[in-house]
Amino acid sequence: MRIGICAPATPLGKDQAAAVWALAERYYPDAELIFHPQCFYEHGHYAGTDQQRLDAFVQMANDPTLEAIWFAKGGYGSNRIAQRAVSALAAPAAEKTYLGYSDMGYLLGSLYRAGIGRQAHGPMVTDISREGGADTVARSLDWLVRGDPSGLEPELVAGERYAAFNLMTLAMMTGSAIMPDLSGHIVIVEEVAEYLYSVDRLFFHLTQALEGKGVTGIRLGLVNAVPENDRPFGSSAEEIARDWCARSGIAYLGRAEIGHAASNHVVPFGKMPG
Amino acid sequence: MRIGICAPATPLGKDQAAAVWALAERYYPDAELIFHPQCFYEHGHYAGTDQQRLDAFVQMANDPTLEAIWFAKGGYGSNRIAQRAVSALAAPAAEKTYLGYSDMGYLLGSLYRAGIGRQAHGPMVTDISREGGADTVARSLDWLVRGDPSGLEPELVAGERYAAFNLMTLAMMTGSAIMPDLSGHIVIVEEVAEYLYSVDRLFFHLTQALEGKGVTGIRLGLVNAVPENDRPFGSSAEEIARDWCARSGIAYLGRAEIGHAASNHVVPFGKMPG
Repeated sequence: MRIGICAPATPLGKDQAAAVWALAERYYPDAELIFHPQCFYEHGHYAGTDQQRLDAFVQMANDPTLEAIWFAKGGYGSNRIAQRAVSALAAPAAEKTYLGYSDMGYLLGSLYRAGIGRQAHGPMVTDISREGGADTVARSLDWLVRGDPSGLEPELVAGERYAAFNLMTLAMMTGSAIMPDLSGHIVIVEEVAEYLYSVDRLFFHLTQALEGKGVTGIRLGLVNAVPENDRPFGSSAEEIARDWCARSGIAYLGRAEIGHAASNHVVPFGKMPG
Repeated sequence: MRIGICAPATPLGKDQAAAVWALAERYYPDAELIFHPQCFYEHGHYAGTDQQRLDAFVQMANDPTLEAIWFAKGGYGSNRIAQRAVSALAAPAAEKTYLGYSDMGYLLGSLYRAGIGRQAHGPMVTDISREGGADTVARSLDWLVRGDPSGLEPELVAGERYAAFNLMTLAMMTGSAIMPDLSGHIVIVEEVAEYLYSVDRLFFHLTQALEGKGVTGIRLGLVNAVPENDRPFGSSAEEIARDWCARSGIAYLGRAEIGHAASNHVVPFGKMPG
């Protein structure tokens, strides 16, 4: 299986690429990882200019010899190219699986909206740097290369529809030209490095956007690396999620094992087979 | 003129209240400042529970002996009570001016949407703590108490319609039940203490929400106290604003003198008289 790797937001570390390359060589002989040089470009905050990041993604997505696009890393910036990317895709793009999370949610959401290929939230190349990162990355490769379901989020239910996003990413996508239809879906969200007042604000925004839109419910992934504020916020991330879900008449369906951590899992978008 | 002061988000400092009280005593003998005790309540992050903050605002807004509500301070949290607040307002609330900025944009926007009273973006009680804060606060009091236009944002044009918001606050309001109709308006936004990638993300979201909605254009206030990121972002706040406005076909109309600083000015919502 030939897997294309590009970085639509921020640059990948060369050491990270080398470590995942070595891991794949050793444990996934059926997988060939093709790192686009764009992964290592630098342009201010980004892994290259908008045009360079767009071109790299579109080139790989339209390459009929690749079976999947595995995103290298998040950061911020794929929203800047998502709409143009989707409109530039050709037939081979529809045959692929697209795997990543965090900022890559803009692209996954855009592709899901457009019905192009299969999308999944899951660990990326950059996660190799976490403690226990080899196991984290293996969840994605097991699923992608071998169809092994052991790396899937443990409580996905056959027959239910899912989509999983970083909370900020999904909140920013609402109301935009790249927002997918999430009616009939269990929406899983996670957040990292945001103050709890920001998490509260994002839940306000997200639940206002999803109210009356027929989502099955919301599950809450990890909310971690919360910065310390000058005073304690007064409620937990889960209390925040429950509160806003209740206000909007959206079912709160409990926690989920996804997030910016070694414990991140794979969540394929759409209907869970069973 | 009797002016009610409450704090729908976070608590006001008692020293700040005392300093503004003394300033008003000395320079604005026609103004009577009535501080609601709720200004000093503390409940986790907030100046009291949602119910306490809601009750204080509604009580003052519905008080026929008060001519204006001057918000004490922003922070975060007025979105949590804005919708319920507006639906609890009675006839005396429609006769008032409401003045504040930052997080108070949720309430100003809600009131503007509902057509209740007159709203203005402008300095609050808490701004007394800035260097030169007496002049800052005086811009609000001059305008509120004496109708003196010298504290207005310098480039407001007679006959144009305006609304001014914190960028994050307006971005979070889009698509919600409290979002006002900004068609035909020059929308002024400012931001504080956000990374430039966050400013970029917020402009993506805001311009996607306003695209095709008939806004006259966007002006950019101060974007200050930007945290240092691990690498320079690569474009300025104004370049970000220009870029996203151009992508959405929204006119970018230049800078404006509002923001989280001593240089903040008053921007009355709606049509500028002339």
